[in-house]
Amino acid sequence: MAKVVSLEGKRRAPGLEPLLSICADDMARIDREILTRMRSPVALIPELANHLVGAGGKRMRPLLTVASARLCGYQSDDDRHIKLATCVEFIHSATLLHDDVVDVSALRRGKPSANSLWGDKASVLVGDFLFTRAFELMVDVGSLDILGVLSRASSTIAEGEVLQLVSQRDTSTPEATYLEVIKAKTAKLFAAAAEVGAMIAGRNGPERVALESFGMNLGIAFQLVDDALDYVGRQADLGKTVGDDFREGKITLPVILAFLRGGQVDREFWKRTIEKLDQREGDLEHAQALMERHHSVADTLERARHYGAMARDALGLFRDTPLKVALLEAVDFAIDRAH
Amino acid sequence: MAKVVSLEGKRRAPGLEPLLSICADDMARIDREILTRMRSPVALIPELANHLVGAGGKRMRPLLTVASARLCGYQSDDDRHIKLATCVEFIHSATLLHDDVVDVSALRRGKPSANSLWGDKASVLVGDFLFTRAFELMVDVGSLDILGVLSRASSTIAEGEVLQLVSQRDTSTPEATYLEVIKAKTAKLFAAAAEVGAMIAGRNGPERVALESFGMNLGIAFQLVDDALDYVGRQADLGKTVGDDFREGKITLPVILAFLRGGQVDREFWKRTIEKLDQREGDLEHAQALMERHHSVADTLERARHYGAMARDALGLFRDTPLKVALLEAVDFAIDRAH
Repeated sequence: MAKVVSLEGKRRAPGLEPLLSICADDMARIDREILTRMRSPVALIPELANHLVGAGGKRMRPLLTVASARLCGYQSDDDRHIKLATCVEFIHSATLLHDDVVDVSALRRGKPSANSLWGDKASVLVGDFLFTRAFELMVDVGSLDILGVLSRASSTIAEGEVLQLVSQRDTSTPEATYLEVIKAKTAKLFAAAAEVGAMIAGRNGPERVALESFGMNLGIAFQLVDDALDYVGRQADLGKTVGDDFREGKITLPVILAFLRGGQVDREFWKRTIEKLDQREGDLEHAQALMERHHSVADTLERARHYGAMARDALGLFRDTPLKVALLEAVDFAIDRAH
Repeated sequence: MAKVVSLEGKRRAPGLEPLLSICADDMARIDREILTRMRSPVALIPELANHLVGAGGKRMRPLLTVASARLCGYQSDDDRHIKLATCVEFIHSATLLHDDVVDVSALRRGKPSANSLWGDKASVLVGDFLFTRAFELMVDVGSLDILGVLSRASSTIAEGEVLQLVSQRDTSTPEATYLEVIKAKTAKLFAAAAEVGAMIAGRNGPERVALESFGMNLGIAFQLVDDALDYVGRQADLGKTVGDDFREGKITLPVILAFLRGGQVDREFWKRTIEKLDQREGDLEHAQALMERHHSVADTLERARHYGAMARDALGLFRDTPLKVALLEAVDFAIDRAH
């Protein structure tokens, strides 16, 4: 596991703090932009949106946009990078609202989900609103190339959501399909968030390619760890209930590996619990025990480390600045939050 | 009621046919573009989307886009007007998919609704997909001004949907709020559909303003008639079940007028049936009788005629061509389909 040596010579667990501190001004401006853009005479909109967006979360995606822009030397005094970062957060938030409806989730980031408080209908419609606001922000920025990247990413996300829905609860889902889903659902927006940072800084050559790859690999690693944490995390860290994916019959890599590596009896267990959603007392614990025996959570994290390594290498062409060091540490954080 | 005198000197009811016949080539190209753009390796997407989009409907909105472009002398051989028209239809379709989920509708255009066949989850996500595809199409067309118009329209629609949700079942909703809802939910997209037709033809002056106004007023008239038909239409013509709005407790102008014009006993009836959704055998018939007594459906249609007249006048600055005559007939059709 990566350790960071602090200025005082002490080792500490990797975190997001260095990156957040370098980008603190931009992040504060993003906060304000988010609040401004959520405004509507229809009071339910800012109310519901604020519950989700205003309440924070790690803001990984907008952070990626401004950090990428700054890494590419973006110095302009205008607010186009702020608008883009806000746009990326809104696309993400719209997806979360619709996801929680589709997954019937009761918790989000440790708080009651918007759908559990305001109902599915409001969540669907406010999600649509945030999505359209995201597009208004892009149009404001005024670059057709950037619009192309973000509209393709949005389309890919939507396609990935449907793919996940149709492969849901199918224990024979191959790892490749799972990877396709998380690339589309999660990693593509990380990739686009970083890519448009380079674009707004006018770096459309190798830096843009590198940052897109950085975002994509970081996003895959991030989702793999999320899916592992669903079986081994502590609820306080997780912001969701341990075992949510299991209870929803969601096919994630820990399940796929445990299914593939198990014998007939194990496979019957997975089919009953995941495919038929026929779950009994003690099933989650048994699932966790099977994963332990087949190292399927450990190997999910191993896969995450592989993508994390690729993300780190993608930054190879940038000079070693404090910002780059902080971005590399963010990769370690994405993976090591599992521990 | 408007009557059209045919070439043979016979009077016939106004229809969409003349407009559809003038725009037949464009409409066929739109059909093909729709099919192409719905493609996805995720089979559920074209399957579900095709059920709704492929099955037709009147295609009023894309028709408005190509007709407006042609009215403004658009002659170009490229397919930008086709892409815009397809984009407008996709925005509309995405809205319908989400609407049916929110309204728990079982029928759409006389067929089982997508959500009743594939479930709410698929409808929400495929709606998102169509929406993102719409934005990809806009980006393809490559005009930031047009992107601005359509992204603002989309945002207004989403805001209108939320406004409708929060004012749902409130019998004290003023006519002004209802008008705001239908402007945002329906008329704004009609307006944008016509406006971008002018823009693609390079007519950004009075023609653009006129066509936006034409679309807005036609859209308001169209929705007013729809809301009237929900109480007096025949299911075969309507493509939805008579009384749907009543059963959902939807506040439309026929209800608002009947509530305002009724006495205490009537108001108690509306509160019980619409606000509390406590509905019994014979309630729909009683609602229809109250509307008859208070002329609330008739006056809803009268209001529609007012907006129809404004739509007709908005075309005053265009030369009298067969296309313009056909557009004027389309206004009459939107209103007279009630008979």
